[in-house]
Amino acid sequence: MTISVIILAAGKGTRMRSALPKVLQPLAGRPLLGHVVDTAKKLQAKQIITIYGHGGDLVQQAFAAEPIQWVEQAQQLGTGHAVQMALSVLPTEGISLILSGDVPCVTQDTLQRLIAASQETGIGLATLTLEDASGYGRIVRKAGQIQAIVEHKDATAEQRQIQEVNTGLYCVSNAKLHQWLPRLSNDNAQAEYYLTDIFAMALADGMQIASIQPNKAFEVEGVNDRVQLAALERQLQHDQAEQLMRQGVHLIDPTRFDLRGQLEAGQDVRIDINVVIEGHCVFGDGVEIGPGCIIKNSHIAAGSKIQAYSILDQAQVGVAAQIGPFARLRPGTVLSDEVHIGNFVEVKNSKIGLASKANHFTYLGDTDIGADCNIGAGTITCNYDGAHKHRTVIDDQVFIGSNSSLVAPLHIGEGATVGAGSVITHDVEPHALAFERAKQLSKTNYQRPQKAKK
Amino acid sequence: MTISVIILAAGKGTRMRSALPKVLQPLAGRPLLGHVVDTAKKLQAKQIITIYGHGGDLVQQAFAAEPIQWVEQAQQLGTGHAVQMALSVLPTEGISLILSGDVPCVTQDTLQRLIAASQETGIGLATLTLEDASGYGRIVRKAGQIQAIVEHKDATAEQRQIQEVNTGLYCVSNAKLHQWLPRLSNDNAQAEYYLTDIFAMALADGMQIASIQPNKAFEVEGVNDRVQLAALERQLQHDQAEQLMRQGVHLIDPTRFDLRGQLEAGQDVRIDINVVIEGHCVFGDGVEIGPGCIIKNSHIAAGSKIQAYSILDQAQVGVAAQIGPFARLRPGTVLSDEVHIGNFVEVKNSKIGLASKANHFTYLGDTDIGADCNIGAGTITCNYDGAHKHRTVIDDQVFIGSNSSLVAPLHIGEGATVGAGSVITHDVEPHALAFERAKQLSKTNYQRPQKAKK
Amino acid sequence: MTISVIILAAGKGTRMRSALPKVLQPLAGRPLLGHVVDTAKKLQAKQIITIYGHGGDLVQQAFAAEPIQWVEQAQQLGTGHAVQMALSVLPTEGISLILSGDVPCVTQDTLQRLIAASQETGIGLATLTLEDASGYGRIVRKAGQIQAIVEHKDATAEQRQIQEVNTGLYCVSNAKLHQWLPRLSNDNAQAEYYLTDIFAMALADGMQIASIQPNKAFEVEGVNDRVQLAALERQLQHDQAEQLMRQGVHLIDPTRFDLRGQLEAGQDVRIDINVVIEGHCVFGDGVEIGPGCIIKNSHIAAGSKIQAYSILDQAQVGVAAQIGPFARLRPGTVLSDEVHIGNFVEVKNSKIGLASKANHFTYLGDTDIGADCNIGAGTITCNYDGAHKHRTVIDDQVFIGSNSSLVAPLHIGEGATVGAGSVITHDVEPHALAFERAKQLSKTNYQRPQKAKK
Repeated sequence: MTISVIILAAGKGTRMRSALPKVLQPLAGRPLLGHVVDTAKKLQAKQIITIYGHGGDLVQQAFAAEPIQWVEQAQQLGTGHAVQMALSVLPTEGISLILSGDVPCVTQDTLQRLIAASQETGIGLATLTLEDASGYGRIVRKAGQIQAIVEHKDATAEQRQIQEVNTGLYCVSNAKLHQWLPRLSNDNAQAEYYLTDIFAMALADGMQIASIQPNKAFEVEGVNDRVQLAALERQLQHDQAEQLMRQGVHLIDPTRFDLRGQLEAGQDVRIDINVVIEGHCVFGDGVEIGPGCIIKNSHIAAGSKIQAYSILDQAQVGVAAQIGPFARLRPGTVLSDEVHIGNFVEVKNSKIGLASKANHFTYLGDTDIGADCNIGAGTITCNYDGAHKHRTVIDDQVFIGSNSSLVAPLHIGEGATVGAGSVITHDVEPHALAFERAKQLSKTNYQRPQKAKK
Repeated sequence: MTISVIILAAGKGTRMRSALPKVLQPLAGRPLLGHVVDTAKKLQAKQIITIYGHGGDLVQQAFAAEPIQWVEQAQQLGTGHAVQMALSVLPTEGISLILSGDVPCVTQDTLQRLIAASQETGIGLATLTLEDASGYGRIVRKAGQIQAIVEHKDATAEQRQIQEVNTGLYCVSNAKLHQWLPRLSNDNAQAEYYLTDIFAMALADGMQIASIQPNKAFEVEGVNDRVQLAALERQLQHDQAEQLMRQGVHLIDPTRFDLRGQLEAGQDVRIDINVVIEGHCVFGDGVEIGPGCIIKNSHIAAGSKIQAYSILDQAQVGVAAQIGPFARLRPGTVLSDEVHIGNFVEVKNSKIGLASKANHFTYLGDTDIGADCNIGAGTITCNYDGAHKHRTVIDDQVFIGSNSSLVAPLHIGEGATVGAGSVITHDVEPHALAFERAKQLSKTNYQRPQKAKK
Repeated sequence: MTISVIILAAGKGTRMRSALPKVLQPLAGRPLLGHVVDTAKKLQAKQIITIYGHGGDLVQQAFAAEPIQWVEQAQQLGTGHAVQMALSVLPTEGISLILSGDVPCVTQDTLQRLIAASQETGIGLATLTLEDASGYGRIVRKAGQIQAIVEHKDATAEQRQIQEVNTGLYCVSNAKLHQWLPRLSNDNAQAEYYLTDIFAMALADGMQIASIQPNKAFEVEGVNDRVQLAALERQLQHDQAEQLMRQGVHLIDPTRFDLRGQLEAGQDVRIDINVVIEGHCVFGDGVEIGPGCIIKNSHIAAGSKIQAYSILDQAQVGVAAQIGPFARLRPGTVLSDEVHIGNFVEVKNSKIGLASKANHFTYLGDTDIGADCNIGAGTITCNYDGAHKHRTVIDDQVFIGSNSSLVAPLHIGEGATVGAGSVITHDVEPHALAFERAKQLSKTNYQRPQKAKK
């Protein structure tokens, strides 16, 4: 059966106190709406209709690359009104999932179960059983069948004892939506069109209402303010952490782990406290990540150790490399196997060959380094002349003395040596020693400046 | 009505196992007593009387700048005895709040409600309703009126069912304190003078006892050991975090956020994990603070991004600046708009002009930099001659080559260029290229030292 | 009485999804089995018998230095079978503690109480009372005496109400083990030899079964997957944190503190958030450790302050030193009193004398520095010639100008000065000024490279 997804994303989110529309608030590094869209795409829906309102331009820009059909709800007249807006683009056959752009954590599995259940009846919803259901719409059942969804304020004292509540996630036959939605009325205290009124219409039509429950309660939690956003972020993070641990990742403290994207991890990956993973990362078997590392869109091959407080962004690290502590690998860093990058070293747009080392205080930008090189402490590639970036090429087995400045464009031949403290502006022949140095002089009995006596 | 505040601060705090008197133990970066004094000052009390005892010299020194009337309690003979000490300086009119120096989190609002309630009756206290009241003094009521405050050990089995307890925060008419306190007796098992005996005297005088409850339970929690101190610190931090989130600050993880002072934050400020804020900080709209930053007494203007593991202390950052990661801005740093300070860069007592950049491994001390400058990687201002600090002045549009040493005092004119690796000891004319460099030499077929064959 | 300890360590730990045998998984930086062995050693057991199976080579290698008698259990035929394997090396006198290699947190005190109780009866076990005992073996008592240990699946509805459960920690007379174990049968659904069958044999022999409960529930928790491992790590960490706080250590956030080894702390030690302590560390009175520091096998003397994000490994720090932020002290660092090591400074295998300072961007490797020296920003000791490491010796009161390169082997005499930016390759006489510098040149009206106009 053809599946449409309708995402309600028109709300302003006043309680967020933000210039951003609510559905653009980030959760685990991705806008709330992005999570819903990602899940919708996994369902292979025929269309993803998103109802926008407040900040619609910003929302559409943020998702310009996504296969979304945008429908405007110019005035916020209720959830029923929002879905009415979608009717113009909604086919008359098939079934629609109706999701909320501010309920980001619902999973593919839960939605597939909702679809399956609703296909049999023509209408269904996700419900949740709560310890304290106060404030929520209650699910009134008789002999197991749903008889009504009653808002808290309209509920009798007896109904308020009910612990099963409406989550606001629905799945409804498109034919029925076309039939029912035009009949919604706003003749109520708020003068709003309530989507939940379609359940009474379904019952009046003699239909049964299907229901399923999410696998985990936080899947159906919505976000209305920063406190809820932070709480949901933690729930999502803990859930992700638990999944990784079940797959065999050793997290030293799952409450101090942030995954903002996707991690593919091999066997016996160990991740210490306060690590942040962003984008799409791949860690091979036995990779160890030290405390406080921040790793974004990077591949780290088997057996490599990333020591504390290293920051990687779009970097590739070979097998059995040692990185950090306090290393920074910026975009375009490609490290071969067994490379050592030490403390206070920055690498950008550079390739480093097998087993080469840059262990201390070094800036390598726009550089190609061969195998078995040693880059001394304090070496700086002077890649920028104020207007353009130039490359430095260092062949195999080169030794760069400490505190050297390598002025690009520059080529240092295989086996060459650069003396400490040299500014190298001309290419260096293979196996040559290049140096730039004045004669060391000395003045005896030199009197240093003295502090004035008080 | 005139309000006096009496703060009991004489305890040693043996269970803290510390050389510091208990009220000097820090909570959120401020001594326990400091929190109470700050709140007392907000009440515009006519006098703040602090009863000191253990470590009195240290306590008085720590609060030398505060408008406190110090009264010694040489011997620790009970809470009643402590307040007796204050009588010599307490007026006979008005009303007194009696607070504890180790109950730091009580709020102005709670105390104002306690004062208001107590002004009607002449005596009042803050009470708290606990799930498990075991160990606490119980509030015995009849028809809603307080009949007695009964210590746990003196309570009947029935009284031990009472969940409302005494918090130790009182508000009493000064006239009554002058009347009652001299009549306290120490004829009890501990041979102590109990302040709570005044409630029986009030009842005997036919007075009613007013009571209020704090807004949040942690306001009335006391601190007796390090475990309680740490627990209260977390409660205070979470409360502060929640307040900031309600104001619209995006905290990625409120359980990993430490505010030790005051933060004024604009709209859409985003603060990542493990950030520590100290002193008084102001963040403009859209400011983003990366993981692990430590920011003290600094102003960061709108749109600036402070990347991970940057440390700022008494720094001013302009609009749309980019700082870090691993940047350190020390006192006296003033950055104009759009300045970039990159990784492993230290700035101290320096001004940097519009859109200038120092992106890597640089020490800028006692330096004035104009607009549109580029300070190359590894540049060091040599501001210290072993006795005195000197200034480096760099005018607009200067380009400093990498690995340069700028020996202060020094002036580099507008549009000048310094060649990489130079030690610059003389002023540089505008638009000149200055460099200090020997000729690059080369020895062919150089044989590097070899490891001894084994 | 002679005590033997038998540790069951043969399990594979399939649910860990690891290449490591389960008992080698680390908890607080030490393999699970290591915790049990450490505790066994404190009991002064006559022998520590460890039953190995899966990954036995790895396990034996990891504990090669420990006084362990290794016994193989080639096939995993149940706990009773495992202990049977030990009979060949178990004396016929004395008593045996039977522990699990994956129950790492049991304490010496709990085990001593178990031994004491079991010595009276000849057999005993540790039990635990749980809120929800579902799944565990229940302890059936009559008039206080243990009548049976009934597996959950075999328990009656009434027995399933029992909250007291078997923890799997036993203490049994060796004579009885030799008598009972050969009589175990595997005539059950799993075809396994159950060790718990010996309790029925003891009762049949008319013996009483002693029992004790651990001081804290987490002592008897086992580890079967990464989720349990992480949860137990947190419980252990919180327990360790609480013990340190009770001793007087000020932990700013005990939930963000990791001790992977042992810390001896003086009075008024203050440890900020996210500090990791590894190995054996000693902190003197008043030591302060800033946020995010990682300190391993180091001694820090009284009054020293280690600022944020410093990493120490096998370092000794004198009294009243100031280290960091972003300092790295590597093995062999020995700092005298009042030394200052500042940001982005790395020290390795070096001694630094009284009150000397290296405040910025410096690499000191294989160096001896006297008292009252100032090492300028950007100084690098060039200790490695590509084959060998050489030492740099700097006597008292030396001033090294910024950005200097000190090429070892090198000796700089007392009171000498090195000019900024010098490469020093020859020894420097006492009180001399040494420098290596070309003449500063200038080209007027220099035209820098320009970006191509677009």
